[in-house]
Amino acid sequence: MKSDLAKRVRGDFPLLRTSIDGRRIVYLDSAATSLKPQPVIDAICRYYTEVGANIHRGKHFLSEQASDDYEEARTRVARFTGFLSSEVVFTANTTASLNMVASGLGLTGDDVVLVPFDAHHSAMLPWRRAAGVRYIPVSDTGVADLDAYAALLRARPAVVVLTHCSNVSGVYAPVERMAAMAKEAGAVTVVDAAQSAGHRRVGGENVDFLAFSAHKMLGPTGVGVLCGRHELLRRLAPPFLGGGVVDWVDTERYDVRKVPHALEAGTPPIAGVYGLAAAIDYLQAIGFDELGEHDRELAGAMVEETLARPRLRLLGPADGTDRAAIASFAIDGVHNLKEIAKILSDSYGVLCRTGHMCAQPFVDRFTDDEVLRVSGYLYNDREDLDVLFSALDSVLDFVRGRR
Amino acid sequence: MKSDLAKRVRGDFPLLRTSIDGRRIVYLDSAATSLKPQPVIDAICRYYTEVGANIHRGKHFLSEQASDDYEEARTRVARFTGFLSSEVVFTANTTASLNMVASGLGLTGDDVVLVPFDAHHSAMLPWRRAAGVRYIPVSDTGVADLDAYAALLRARPAVVVLTHCSNVSGVYAPVERMAAMAKEAGAVTVVDAAQSAGHRRVGGENVDFLAFSAHKMLGPTGVGVLCGRHELLRRLAPPFLGGGVVDWVDTERYDVRKVPHALEAGTPPIAGVYGLAAAIDYLQAIGFDELGEHDRELAGAMVEETLARPRLRLLGPADGTDRAAIASFAIDGVHNLKEIAKILSDSYGVLCRTGHMCAQPFVDRFTDDEVLRVSGYLYNDREDLDVLFSALDSVLDFVRGRR
Repeated sequence: MKSDLAKRVRGDFPLLRTSIDGRRIVYLDSAATSLKPQPVIDAICRYYTEVGANIHRGKHFLSEQASDDYEEARTRVARFTGFLSSEVVFTANTTASLNMVASGLGLTGDDVVLVPFDAHHSAMLPWRRAAGVRYIPVSDTGVADLDAYAALLRARPAVVVLTHCSNVSGVYAPVERMAAMAKEAGAVTVVDAAQSAGHRRVGGENVDFLAFSAHKMLGPTGVGVLCGRHELLRRLAPPFLGGGVVDWVDTERYDVRKVPHALEAGTPPIAGVYGLAAAIDYLQAIGFDELGEHDRELAGAMVEETLARPRLRLLGPADGTDRAAIASFAIDGVHNLKEIAKILSDSYGVLCRTGHMCAQPFVDRFTDDEVLRVSGYLYNDREDLDVLFSALDSVLDFVRGRR
Repeated sequence: MKSDLAKRVRGDFPLLRTSIDGRRIVYLDSAATSLKPQPVIDAICRYYTEVGANIHRGKHFLSEQASDDYEEARTRVARFTGFLSSEVVFTANTTASLNMVASGLGLTGDDVVLVPFDAHHSAMLPWRRAAGVRYIPVSDTGVADLDAYAALLRARPAVVVLTHCSNVSGVYAPVERMAAMAKEAGAVTVVDAAQSAGHRRVGGENVDFLAFSAHKMLGPTGVGVLCGRHELLRRLAPPFLGGGVVDWVDTERYDVRKVPHALEAGTPPIAGVYGLAAAIDYLQAIGFDELGEHDRELAGAMVEETLARPRLRLLGPADGTDRAAIASFAIDGVHNLKEIAKILSDSYGVLCRTGHMCAQPFVDRFTDDEVLRVSGYLYNDREDLDVLFSALDSVLDFVRGRR
């Protein structure tokens, strides 16, 4: 790899100093959750050791500090996504963000919602409960079928859900083009950017709602983001009512606050928001150009190594399709991928994941019922892939020999 | 004060080393959020620096470690509350917990729900949206009227919501007795323990649902708890669908997982759960006997000092009613309590809070529209109260002189 990003940033990630049985770990599970750099951990600690107070509602020195920092983080997210500060809602996670839109728009079973066939369950099931879902089909290589999509748009869907990057195949959908087509058809567009935020720019003028989580982009667990165009955000029924959501209450009536506060019920994940702001700073100091280039190199190497091994059946296209550093594959003759992952982990220190990756319809179409997923991020390099694939070769030779 | 608890524990709370303008801070805002002891901060950092992985779904060394720790924390909460592990749901905060019950039970406007008049908005508004609310009235001193409550129970309410401890008056409701009465009337009982958890034992055999937050009991922001009797928890419609909530999905159907997992959609606040477990350990090492005794002494001193100042109009009873170390008062002749709080903070380092405390119907009945609330916890002692009241005397003399 030309990119030396991993070498430069590794020292920032304390978890990479972990070893398993004397071996340094090779963390290839960033699509499940990313590791956190020290500045993010420090930001969380700083809140607890130097600020500590609850935000809003009442004014003392530390409460004002916390409120200012919290709102400043909102501005940071706004700049990061291209939305306005008042269009940024802090939530618990991407799943909460997507559910808030699906259940908040007042849809009925008569409303058509288009959902990608490779969507994560969190971008699929909320819509199935709220409306009539039709799937944007994928081709035999697992890529969105744009002709079929164009045809589906003629049904005038109320909402089009798009997955920016598949958490299984790693394929990036041409989300700007698809969002533009959806807007032209009069639909509200919702983009699940859980897998892409922190890897490349998200959003764009035709994206009405954008959902992602801090924990997959170097930030903490327990904090998600929902960005939404102001007039649409205002239409959402708050899923939860309570403290922070209302301006005025008597025994009969109440006035709901303006968005985004109307959608942030109760004490929010304040420390998490500090951590998210630090994650954004960290990523922006590197810049999306370099992050994107690193991802592309890593992705290319992953695909190449996978294709070089005939036993591995890559889920997704084998060509130069735009993809993230995620490779999911089945293994010929192996029906218990969990066991493989366990050996990779415990004997080689290589951490990757198996299962249906919360995208079961998609995984079931292309495999028996699970994949082994390898996913990288800025701290991974070619050497990590070499460790993985050489370990995998050994394990598979061993498993084959045993039979 | 006889209790020397504050002296012993203070060193554990890094925020208490903060000073404002050269003065050590006096933190009297624990009813908004408590400070965190170092072991809680360390537990959060430990997750990010030594474990880092996402839980469940896929098996590698660190993922198993995270999953084990997460489920072990659930068991810790179960022992803390007297519920079973399978009856403990991790949520975003108390507000989320209470909303999940209110919207999940399938109530309609014809169902009667009793709500305390002194309830926090988060224990009031969700029920107003879901059902027909009647208020359990309070006496002229702000204490639940048990005769009126008994009469209301004859209407056979579907649900009775109880506030264990008022976040405004600090009064503890006789929640065990009231829950027993509610169960006898055939109601489902829901206890808001946001203000009491971490101060004294919560729960009891007649409590069906129990809600509280980590951040008011020495734990992190961004994690709440909902405990619920298994058969009732199973009845709750999951507010959010997505990853972690389902066992199996195809394009038409899905099988929802068992509780508690059915109610934990998406990646949960994993680091927060580590912190909560550490907070429980910390509190249990002190023990509720000592915590309770310390609270009682602090509460007694607060009431005494408030009553000794004729300008202060205490909200709540002036007698020996069972109460937490929370005192809320209006001030004769002062219509801008925010200004007072600001001077207390910026000139004296005393941090307390003003407003309607998210219990506006209750506060509006007894005051113009706001109170100044002082709230203590294990790290506060008599000396803190002396600083507060002496500062308050000076500020009020100054304000009076200015007029």
